[in-house]
Formats: sequence, C-alpha cells, structure tokens
Amino acid sequence: MLQPIMHVLNAQRIILASGSPRRKHILENVGLKFEVIPSTFEEKLDKSKFPSPVEYVLETASQKTLQVAEMLKTKSSLVPDLVIGADTVVSMDGKIFEKPKDKDDAFQMLSGFSGGSHTVYTGVVLITPSNVFQTGAGESVNSMRIHKFHEATDVSMATLTPEIVRAYIETGEPMDKAGGYGIQAIGGTLVEKVNGDFFNVMGFPLCRFAQELLNLYSQKK
Amino acid sequence: MLQPIMHVLNAQRIILASGSPRRKHILENVGLKFEVIPSTFEEKLDKSKFPSPVEYVLETASQKTLQVAEMLKTKSSLVPDLVIGADTVVSMDGKIFEKPKDKDDAFQMLSGFSGGSHTVYTGVVLITPSNVFQTGAGESVNSMRIHKFHEATDVSMATLTPEIVRAYIETGEPMDKAGGYGIQAIGGTLVEKVNGDFFNVMGFPLCRFAQELLNLYSQKK
Repeated sequence: MLQPIMHVLNAQRIILASGSPRRKHILENVGLKFEVIPSTFEEKLDKSKFPSPVEYVLETASQKTLQVAEMLKTKSSLVPDLVIGADTVVSMDGKIFEKPKDKDDAFQMLSGFSGGSHTVYTGVVLITPSNVFQTGAGESVNSMRIHKFHEATDVSMATLTPEIVRAYIETGEPMDKAGGYGIQAIGGTLVEKVNGDFFNVMGFPLCRFAQELLNLYSQKK
Repeated sequence: MLQPIMHVLNAQRIILASGSPRRKHILENVGLKFEVIPSTFEEKLDKSKFPSPVEYVLETASQKTLQVAEMLKTKSSLVPDLVIGADTVVSMDGKIFEKPKDKDDAFQMLSGFSGGSHTVYTGVVLITPSNVFQTGAGESVNSMRIHKFHEATDVSMATLTPEIVRAYIETGEPMDKAGGYGIQAIGGTLVEKVNGDFFNVMGFPLCRFAQELLNLYSQKK
C-alpha cells in the first residue's frame, strides 16, 4: 500500500512515539524508516469520564503523541515531519482492560475472556508540521496538524482451562500487554478467531494507517 | 494452549514436512521443537476432481505428509513421533489460487482480490505411529495413524490501484505465496480485515492445531 510513497517517506524524519516492541516490529516489517522516542506520559486518564473505549484510546494516544511532538519542537534542531503515536485497550461488557497489574490480574482477565468475545481498540494519532499539509486534513494546534483515527477488532478466544491460563501466564508473555495476551506469539494458540485487522490486536492498525498515510501524502503541498 | 503438554512434546521427535518459512516461524514462535524435512511431492493434483477447496487441500496435505512419514519409516533408525504437514490455497468465486506463476499472474490475482473478499483454506495432516494413540483418533494406514483437519479464513482486501499492486509485486513478496501476498509483512497493509484465524492466512491454523494436539496427547496410551 505504501510503496508508491515510500521514497517520500524515507526522505523524512519520522518518529514513533511509543516504546511498544510490537508497534516497532509492525512498522519496520513494512519497510518504514523511523526513530523510536517513547512518550513518558503516564496513562492515568479517568476511564469513567469517557463515553466509550474509542474516546479513551484517542485521548491517551493524543496526549502521548503531543508530548513527544512538543518536546522535539523545543529541544531538537531538526523538527520531525511525522510523529506517530498510539494507545491500545481491550474492552468487554463495558469494562476497559489495559496491561495486567500482576499474575492474579492476568488470570482474572484471561479467565474472563475464555470462550467468549472481546474487542481490541487502538487509537492512532499522526502529528505533522502545519505548513506541510493542506488545511483539510486534521485539526491544527500550535503550528502542528493533528490527525486521529481508531480501529476496533473483535477477538474470539478458545475455552481455556485454569491449567492452560496458569501455564500461559508462567511463560511471562502476558504482563506487558493490554488484555494480558500476545496474539503474535504463544497467545496466538488461544485465539480462535479475529474479526477485523489482526495487527490492531498487536497494537497498531496497519491497513488503516497505510490508507491514512497515502491519503495524507497525496494532500501534501 | 500447549504449555500443559510442552514437556511431553519436547521429548519427542517431531517433523515439519513443509519447507514454508512461515509455518516454521509460527511453530517456533510458540516454543515447539522440531526438524524440518520438506516434502518433495509435486502439487499437481487435478483441482477439477475435488468438490471444494477443502478436499483439495486435505488431499494435497495428506500426500505431502505421507511421503515424508513413509520415507522416514524406511530410511531412519529413529521413527518420528509426529509428522506435521499442511497445504494452503486461496479461493474466490469457485476458483482455486496457489502461488503465482509469474508477475503477470500475481497482478491478475491481486487485482481480482482488490476491494473484495476471498477465503484461505489450509488442510493440516498429523501422522503418528499407530501404537502411540488410542484407536479413536484418525484413520490407520500402514501402522501409522493419520489425523486431518482444515480451517477456512475470510480475508477482505482494501481497494488497490494498479499502481499499488505493481509496486507491491516489485517488492518480491508475492511470488512464493498462495494468493500472491504475505499478510505477515508488507502484504498486511493491503488487508482490511480477516474473519477467522489470522495464522491460517499465513499458512497454518495455529489455534486449531494446538487444540487438536492437546486432544490427541490426552488420548495417549
């Protein structure tokens, strides 16, 4: 999808404002060149103030991405052409799940997902300097243009015995992942079905991102 | 899923009868230890003789896996405990697509998939020595037990311009893959949505495989 604009992208300074090794892997895997500058924004927004997980991930992703973009604008001599940020949560029965606090929390989450369906939401924020793109794309703040979108993917999990859940937690895989599983590795054995973008479950909606970027760069002044 | 039986599996001689680097990657990624001995069975069964892609992939996977299992039974002093084989095709509008013959063929396939939905079928065959498992599991041939299953996953592709298709083909990714795309890498940008097991689109239905193996090993004598 990105090949027609890859020569333009690869001449730019692109920042991934996320420390997630999965997001880095997904973007490297499609040939994008970028630097990783993780946001230090603490993910502590009050979930009860958001009408749905969509608004929550979009606001958290915005805060993370803006923090890195603002920091680079003041500290760096070379202002980036594009800052990419994202936030991912899992939701089931109106509740939002992030990374498990400990093994017990992971056990509760995974046992709750067992044999049923939950939804993974990722909010993505792209920040570019205002003077690069036409005014049509996104909102403008402090001479930066902010472009947001989100993606939702349904995940159906196999029925898991407590023995399977405990043995999976002992692999160490669940702890740094929203929802307590990593679909791209051992956790993939637990997932019967996804309905939507698989990469969104890993933490980054790849197809939609490629489409938005293609659209954005075709509007370039 | 496999953690409760991993100590048993890792004490066995397991063979992957496939040269696909994707299948090897998927199985290594969940911690399975195995040798790769690709089948040399030529995939030339007459597709018109099969009522659906399911029967076709199951028969091709059987032929491939049996060839490796038979060869190891006669040549090797150490008979394997488990031989794993698989075959994957893509189907749309009653037609079966395998690896593209050349760039033009890849262009035709991908242009045909653009903006629509196709289905990926993988047939998996597991062969074990007859004396290891109870008679309930699979059919028995020449003192080997043969266990078969398949999985189907629907894939919705984004609308692709001829420019995007051509640029994607130039990356070299399509040529060794059924359907002409690799969903796990650059081809992931082209796929809006999967409905089913994502790993099945890569060539191996991971969750179903783990469930079947767990079931098989709980029947072990």
